Amino acid sequence: MKVGERHYRAVWADSPGAAGLTVRMIEQRLLPHRFEIVGLESHMDTARAIRDMVIRGAPSIGAAAAYGMAQAAAEAPPDEADGAAYLREAKAHLAGTRPTAFDLFDALDHVAGALEGASAKDRARAALEAAEAYADRTVERCRRIGEHGAALIPEGGVVLTHCNAGWLATLDWGTALAPVYAAHRAGVRLSVLADETRPRMQGANLTAWELAGEGVDYRIAADNAAGLLMRRGEIALAIVGADRIAANGDAANKIGTCEKALLAREHGIPFYVAAPSSTFDPACPSGDSIPIEERSEDEVLYVHGIADDGTPTRVRVAPPGARARNPAFDVTPASWITGYITEHGVLTADQLGEALARRG
Amino acid sequence: MKVGERHYRAVWADSPGAAGLTVRMIEQRLLPHRFEIVGLESHMDTARAIRDMVIRGAPSIGAAAAYGMAQAAAEAPPDEADGAAYLREAKAHLAGTRPTAFDLFDALDHVAGALEGASAKDRARAALEAAEAYADRTVERCRRIGEHGAALIPEGGVVLTHCNAGWLATLDWGTALAPVYAAHRAGVRLSVLADETRPRMQGANLTAWELAGEGVDYRIAADNAAGLLMRRGEIALAIVGADRIAANGDAANKIGTCEKALLAREHGIPFYVAAPSSTFDPACPSGDSIPIEERSEDEVLYVHGIADDGTPTRVRVAPPGARARNPAFDVTPASWITGYITEHGVLTADQLGEALARRG
Repeated sequence: MKVGERHYRAVWADSPGAAGLTVRMIEQRLLPHRFEIVGLESHMDTARAIRDMVIRGAPSIGAAAAYGMAQAAAEAPPDEADGAAYLREAKAHLAGTRPTAFDLFDALDHVAGALEGASAKDRARAALEAAEAYADRTVERCRRIGEHGAALIPEGGVVLTHCNAGWLATLDWGTALAPVYAAHRAGVRLSVLADETRPRMQGANLTAWELAGEGVDYRIAADNAAGLLMRRGEIALAIVGADRIAANGDAANKIGTCEKALLAREHGIPFYVAAPSSTFDPACPSGDSIPIEERSEDEVLYVHGIADDGTPTRVRVAPPGARARNPAFDVTPASWITGYITEHGVLTADQLGEALARRG
Repeated sequence: MKVGERHYRAVWADSPGAAGLTVRMIEQRLLPHRFEIVGLESHMDTARAIRDMVIRGAPSIGAAAAYGMAQAAAEAPPDEADGAAYLREAKAHLAGTRPTAFDLFDALDHVAGALEGASAKDRARAALEAAEAYADRTVERCRRIGEHGAALIPEGGVVLTHCNAGWLATLDWGTALAPVYAAHRAGVRLSVLADETRPRMQGANLTAWELAGEGVDYRIAADNAAGLLMRRGEIALAIVGADRIAANGDAANKIGTCEKALLAREHGIPFYVAAPSSTFDPACPSGDSIPIEERSEDEVLYVHGIADDGTPTRVRVAPPGARARNPAFDVTPASWITGYITEHGVLTADQLGEALARRG
């Protein structure tokens, strides 16, 4: 999507030169206050960037790891046995950067698979082609989510979203934001109400920054504001992303999502979950089986931002000795969800079950 | 309530000395990071403190104005006509500090009424007595709210509250927090889940500080967390305050309140509004007639707190040029409210109507 007048993905590779392959990614930890591209010259550098969260969002992490594996293939010694050992070690190293990200393992297997049977001479090219194909497939899924979801947004409508399920997290287009971008590019007049999404403020930080870059009209609001605005009829529909969707359609997503879904149901406002089919977990029967991470209390007790003098600063908002609860996700029951915007179309919870069965 | 081991009200008057009457109040703008008492030597000083929001909360503002009027009575020239003119001017000046606070006018009328017919010699004493009586009546109402509400809190229960409806706002006890304090003092084991209450963070700032002072166990949570915690059965009941309650029982309160009420209804959790009878407005037929203030966008775009070096600091959490929505209140429909904790007991919406009719 656009930053200034240029198009970017969250991560990409420069054409390989004599010196190897450079992976470039947007330094997401500095957003929205500074836009910076970092260049990573080796698979070790790329692994460090993934671990240090320069890039976040499971699909973006997967693509970064795929490119890292392509770097390793360019670096590997020409001897067949030595080269294979180098690649095994590189794959394990990249896999250890964010051990809970499913997309990461999927991406590494994808590139490693392409290397099987490739000669030492062809390895670098084969790995880069596989990484590019992996990235393109991810982007294509999101583009289709955008296409299917755009039809749901009425002219002049305000779309509520929570957290950041945008292109920074998915290489390009995003999931929840893909329909917004697609509709906007198709000339539909719309506006986004971006929940700021405490405690980590991904809405105020990342969603707002993405929307500004693409030229989409938006307002940030405290997470508390949605109830009043829905009651007043100011929200046309809500679209959110998901971290995992159970077989029955229950969806885990950023904390606060289920509150918006309940409010939407109460006010007769459509509430959609946008996600690629890879987010559906047929092995998970319902939301009750999804474990909820409780994160550091400091995320609630402190807020990060930029001080008036331009310095990145954190401020404490609670008294000394205060304790906090910080569950990171909640589960929205399938019965509160109007539909699921996937690369295969907009599905109901029942259709989801069928689609999953077919896939299995 | 307690701060350290001492008992405080939000505002009080020193016994008058030869030099006049000193009004003391807690400097609420510094909380929770610094506890400071300011001394105000004249009604002009007290008026300035009210205007500058050293003190906030309608009942606390009312009491501060009553004490300010007592200061004016101590300052007034002995000549009867000159003295009366001085007091008229002082009353108008105090009334102009926060023009929308109903309690402020009520308090000033109360003290001015006590001055009618008082001799110049008796004025200072009569005014101070009237101000003390006004303050004591406010405190007594809150104490009774606490008494009635405490019975609703089960042993070991977690009480959800939103914003700050505590003693800082009402001189002593509070409204939503009065039942918590009463139950805690009666030996009931309980804990409070304090919504941080974006955008102004009154939960993280003021409610947390109050509860710590009184020794009540509590956790702060992002406003987003209530849905998950209710679903898990971790909340026994919710108690919030109110800014205005319509004749049909609809209640206006800090933005985000109605979301908690809807979640509570969905999960079968009792949701109470605690307020003195003076908050009920029989002239207001329903919540639709209550105007909702939209406040400065900066309250959403910036967060105030204390930096690691101890300096009060604001940080920007949104990209340059970002816009925000900032409605300050929302309306909770009467049908989502289990009951109203008043100084007359715990009432249903229907009983509220009767009580209002009797009062009328």
